[in-house]
Amino acid sequence: MSTQVQSFSLPKATGKHQAAHPLCALRGDEISYTAELIRSLWPANTDLRFKTITLDEPPKAQLLPYLEAEVSGGKLPVIDRKAFAAYYIRNTERFHEAVVNLSTTQIERNVRLGANIHGNGDYEEIVLIEKNALEDEGVKAEIAKLQLPEGTIVCADPWIYGSDGINDDERLFQVFLYMRDPSNPSDLDSNHYAFPLPISPVIECNSYKVIRIDILPTGKDNTIKPISKWTAAPANEYIHEYQNLRNDLKPLHVVQPEGASFNINPVGNGTLHNLSWQKWNMQIHYNAREGPVLFNISYDGRPLIFRLSLSDMNIPYADPRHPFHKKSAFDLGDAGAGAMANNLQLGCDCLGHIAYISSTVSDDKGDPMPLENCVCIHEQDGGIGWKHTNYRTGRAAVTRNRELVIQTIITVSNYEYILAYMFNQVGEITYEVRATGVLSTQPIDQELCGPDGEGVPWGTVVHPGVLATHHQHIFSLRIDPNIGSLREGNQLVYTEAHAMPIDKDWNPNGTGYYTEDTLVEKSAGLNLNPDANRVFKIINPNQRNQINGKSIGYKIQAPPFQKILSAPESFNYKRAEFSDKNIYVTKYADRELYAGGWYTNQSRGGTGVRSWAERRDDVAGGSTGSDLVLFVQFGINHIPRIEDFPVMPCEKISVHLKPVNFFDKNPGIDVRPSEQVFNRSTSAQQETSHHQAGSVEMKVNGDCCGGEVKGKL
Amino acid sequence: MSTQVQSFSLPKATGKHQAAHPLCALRGDEISYTAELIRSLWPANTDLRFKTITLDEPPKAQLLPYLEAEVSGGKLPVIDRKAFAAYYIRNTERFHEAVVNLSTTQIERNVRLGANIHGNGDYEEIVLIEKNALEDEGVKAEIAKLQLPEGTIVCADPWIYGSDGINDDERLFQVFLYMRDPSNPSDLDSNHYAFPLPISPVIECNSYKVIRIDILPTGKDNTIKPISKWTAAPANEYIHEYQNLRNDLKPLHVVQPEGASFNINPVGNGTLHNLSWQKWNMQIHYNAREGPVLFNISYDGRPLIFRLSLSDMNIPYADPRHPFHKKSAFDLGDAGAGAMANNLQLGCDCLGHIAYISSTVSDDKGDPMPLENCVCIHEQDGGIGWKHTNYRTGRAAVTRNRELVIQTIITVSNYEYILAYMFNQVGEITYEVRATGVLSTQPIDQELCGPDGEGVPWGTVVHPGVLATHHQHIFSLRIDPNIGSLREGNQLVYTEAHAMPIDKDWNPNGTGYYTEDTLVEKSAGLNLNPDANRVFKIINPNQRNQINGKSIGYKIQAPPFQKILSAPESFNYKRAEFSDKNIYVTKYADRELYAGGWYTNQSRGGTGVRSWAERRDDVAGGSTGSDLVLFVQFGINHIPRIEDFPVMPCEKISVHLKPVNFFDKNPGIDVRPSEQVFNRSTSAQQETSHHQAGSVEMKVNGDCCGGEVKGKL
Repeated sequence: MSTQVQSFSLPKATGKHQAAHPLCALRGDEISYTAELIRSLWPANTDLRFKTITLDEPPKAQLLPYLEAEVSGGKLPVIDRKAFAAYYIRNTERFHEAVVNLSTTQIERNVRLGANIHGNGDYEEIVLIEKNALEDEGVKAEIAKLQLPEGTIVCADPWIYGSDGINDDERLFQVFLYMRDPSNPSDLDSNHYAFPLPISPVIECNSYKVIRIDILPTGKDNTIKPISKWTAAPANEYIHEYQNLRNDLKPLHVVQPEGASFNINPVGNGTLHNLSWQKWNMQIHYNAREGPVLFNISYDGRPLIFRLSLSDMNIPYADPRHPFHKKSAFDLGDAGAGAMANNLQLGCDCLGHIAYISSTVSDDKGDPMPLENCVCIHEQDGGIGWKHTNYRTGRAAVTRNRELVIQTIITVSNYEYILAYMFNQVGEITYEVRATGVLSTQPIDQELCGPDGEGVPWGTVVHPGVLATHHQHIFSLRIDPNIGSLREGNQLVYTEAHAMPIDKDWNPNGTGYYTEDTLVEKSAGLNLNPDANRVFKIINPNQRNQINGKSIGYKIQAPPFQKILSAPESFNYKRAEFSDKNIYVTKYADRELYAGGWYTNQSRGGTGVRSWAERRDDVAGGSTGSDLVLFVQFGINHIPRIEDFPVMPCEKISVHLKPVNFFDKNPGIDVRPSEQVFNRSTSAQQETSHHQAGSVEMKVNGDCCGGEVKGKL
Repeated sequence: MSTQVQSFSLPKATGKHQAAHPLCALRGDEISYTAELIRSLWPANTDLRFKTITLDEPPKAQLLPYLEAEVSGGKLPVIDRKAFAAYYIRNTERFHEAVVNLSTTQIERNVRLGANIHGNGDYEEIVLIEKNALEDEGVKAEIAKLQLPEGTIVCADPWIYGSDGINDDERLFQVFLYMRDPSNPSDLDSNHYAFPLPISPVIECNSYKVIRIDILPTGKDNTIKPISKWTAAPANEYIHEYQNLRNDLKPLHVVQPEGASFNINPVGNGTLHNLSWQKWNMQIHYNAREGPVLFNISYDGRPLIFRLSLSDMNIPYADPRHPFHKKSAFDLGDAGAGAMANNLQLGCDCLGHIAYISSTVSDDKGDPMPLENCVCIHEQDGGIGWKHTNYRTGRAAVTRNRELVIQTIITVSNYEYILAYMFNQVGEITYEVRATGVLSTQPIDQELCGPDGEGVPWGTVVHPGVLATHHQHIFSLRIDPNIGSLREGNQLVYTEAHAMPIDKDWNPNGTGYYTEDTLVEKSAGLNLNPDANRVFKIINPNQRNQINGKSIGYKIQAPPFQKILSAPESFNYKRAEFSDKNIYVTKYADRELYAGGWYTNQSRGGTGVRSWAERRDDVAGGSTGSDLVLFVQFGINHIPRIEDFPVMPCEKISVHLKPVNFFDKNPGIDVRPSEQVFNRSTSAQQETSHHQAGSVEMKVNGDCCGGEVKGKL
């Protein structure tokens, strides 16, 4: 690696950067300007392919004084505005990263990255790969052997290549071929995943030419059979016009006659949004890799989280056979959750009164690419918040749990993820993922299908001739906490519950149990243990609850899941550094944002959270805590059901953050009662009063009061 | 035990029973008539205390032909209508159970039950215990030592006694004393759980007199200190008028302008309800013990579940010290989920267009006690059902997930449980429990509280002088399945995912994994294993999916939880027979409904699901399955947070049943699209179209069609 640092004269006066908050995303003109500055490093006709141009987030040491000044109303420190870029010399393997200081117009860093570091896919490239795969004469020759019906439309799904260490030092794509329903070739939205073909071209990324054509195994073993004539199979469409739609569902409207209860305001250059709702306050940033990132989350003015984001995602597949063994995607690092976001549609993606945020990312030419409505913000009713009925008087006190949802939906080729940050009125944060979309399919011999077909043990036949392979979705949620204070240290502890030993004095009946906290001293990867009720908590040891003396904290409720099944020797395992533990804790370091490493495409491992944790940094900070970061993993081992095809019903998985001795009481105690006058429900029946009644009590030195039966001293 | 079988002449002509469906609950007149028949067994002035008078459900062997005839439209077999009753000779320990044939007016069974079999609590008794505890001179003398402020109101919370084998053969109650805020004694809804007192009277249930007064340990150990003057402490109210309510939450209405999408119709005598919604059909029965019980659940005419119910619940507490070690409640068997149901209020307990069901249970005198609005039925929006966006055309196909909710809310003294059966449009059933209400509290010395207080390891200080002890909530959901057929056998299998060993031919890269099914052969208790992704499935081995050859089935998704912490030697463990395993499977037997046994109050164990499973019955039934029953356990180890006081934010826990290869494709593929014209959301912003576009494809032997780039053979 060589570093080139150069200084430039400002090509045009911008002055626009002054208005930006340090956490504002790059505006379109800043993206263009960054590209222009980087191009000016190179001979005039050098063609660059930009992989990303994004905000270079300021170091935390610079941000904290700024945030403190925002709170105190003091003078805001000046923080230079910088852009981060990764780019290729187009049609070469020469991959660079650069940091451009937009405030000084200096290029502070511009380095060529070393071997086995590859950039993410980009949209223009995906389109090019589809085209070149389909135009390749060798591919056409293989397709011809299938003797497809006249008029059949073949289409190509480019797939990230993965790593197996076999001739894969250069940047490659594998491509899976499908066709649209041959009997209905004109419908562009026909579901081609019902017609997988056994041909997989491999493309290298200098010329984007086909360098190899893999023929897929379609039987019970890894035998590659000669391609023969395609046999007819039925279609399996998901789009609505091919269904005999139900007509017995009546409308359900969420009506908010006074509008929504949140306030959202753009900050700085308009790319950062301040959001306040029900004592919560936070800032919404957006970037191409992570999508929406929440900064400075606080409740009732008390800091909770400095930065919250989906850090990474890995989807390794179960089929051991070449070339399927290479299917292991990192949808954030390889593609970009932000870049892949859907344009959300009013009334289609959520109900009620909805606000949308749009954003801008960069394209391959270094031009801004607008993302309209890539985030929606709305409220929803989350059922009863709390309730108690006094059985003596029959009086019920009840509240509803209103929730605030910040949602993004991403399409990564076949799959969809519905990603939502949710907040409620009792100080809880939920990160919810709903997995939906279409399974990534492959061909399987007809004799393995049907009522007597034996299938294969690494996948499920979901349609005649169609195999959906088992795969894991492993997510990593990054939490950079500041529980209780911008500056004070935090700690990670876990609480377990254990039976007390039987003891004739202490626990003679064998019924007692107790909890104990264990402080995590060093950076590490750790697991849940449901049998010990192990619960991880982030605490601030500098602030004690005034009523019970416990350190204020937040617990993490994440469901147990099966960790990555790939062997520790495998590239799958080495690359997905977050995939083997329920939680990683590290000492904060700038730029350690992505649990699988900065560049995941064909990565080799060694650059993610497992490596950071192996530093064994002190994260306890003695008695006062440290600046630590948590990576919370959760996931699904998706064993496909036929019910998941042709489109998969949402599978929901959630991580909750809940206060533990952070407040003095239920923080939702002040939520207004749930009453018909407010909620306006409807009934065919007449309302009746509570049946519970009757009270028994005793008044000391006085008259009795209350219900039927009274005692008196 | 002795059995008396007698025949009676019908005291009055009823003829009403003919109209009843065999699953109809007893009507009020049937309850009264049953009590009358039973009273007629005894000398004229014998006073009976009825514990329950409820439908004696017909044996399954009788029900199946009836249900088949209902489906086929054939002649309905005659099934005798019977009532089950349990009762005491009032003010004695003589406890009986009886079965009364209402069709023949014969008493078919009337036996006195043996030692250590005790009836549940009843409302009249609870009121009497409160009264007698407070009127007892000894109790008054102990209270006097507290020197409470003048005008203070003391109240009594009767608690089920539990079992420790120490002088507890007779039926007993323990009582915990509290007081209302001494500075505000007139508010009947003041939260007395903020003022626990260290005095616990024990009452025996013949005379209902105090037989012992336990003084509670309040320190770090089991030392009993002399009662001294009460020291002032603040109140902690949950009712709304004491709060400074938030005023920034705007209304959210669920409006269903065309009404709800379900149909509900009374069947037979009106106590059973047929419910149909979105291809689902089922019958809702209601009884005092279980609350709503669902029978004959089918989807699109295909049977799924014969009987679904909450079978049991156990709540053992962690404090090892006398008398707290005896706190271990079975809220269904000791009190009754049905009997404790709230009267649900329009707009307070759910939103939208709501139907209510009322029911009738029996009281201590054998009279009917109406329960108004004890079940509510409504729809809710469950977010996106499924979505896919074709990135080539930008077209999004999306549905919303409408859910049907059948909800009951029960108040068991301090605690509330919100119990809901939920159904959706993709063939899934969810059983959801939300735990809320007020923690059961006890006094703790002030020196253990406050910012420097060390507390105790078996509980959390939630208010000055108030300890909330750790406790487990362990639920048992009973599933009597009939997947795919009323008559064919079912089987229980579990699927695990395992890594393939590295093998140079088969799995050279160490990435492969596979699933395998294990058939459960014998009745047993079994555990989850998240590390193996173990998933239990109910299958019908007689019906194969026509596309992939798998047996049709439903999987059970239940979260892992910490099993009962009480030692295997303890009564807690012996009694809560379901509490030690995630799932029990038994061979069907009539009357094996309650996982902790029929009579849980002060039970000794040996009468619940662990005992049934120990029969090691064949549940596989060779290759064709058997009539098996599942008991699925789930739970919370509730380590109280201060945020759970004075009333606890809902803690939600769910069990899901989802089809696995039961259908041929996503059963919700025919749900109408989610569109603004239907959903009518609102926005301050203008709607824009999808940004995704561009298509690459190849048409075989024909013209290209679609987007920007085209290939041609």
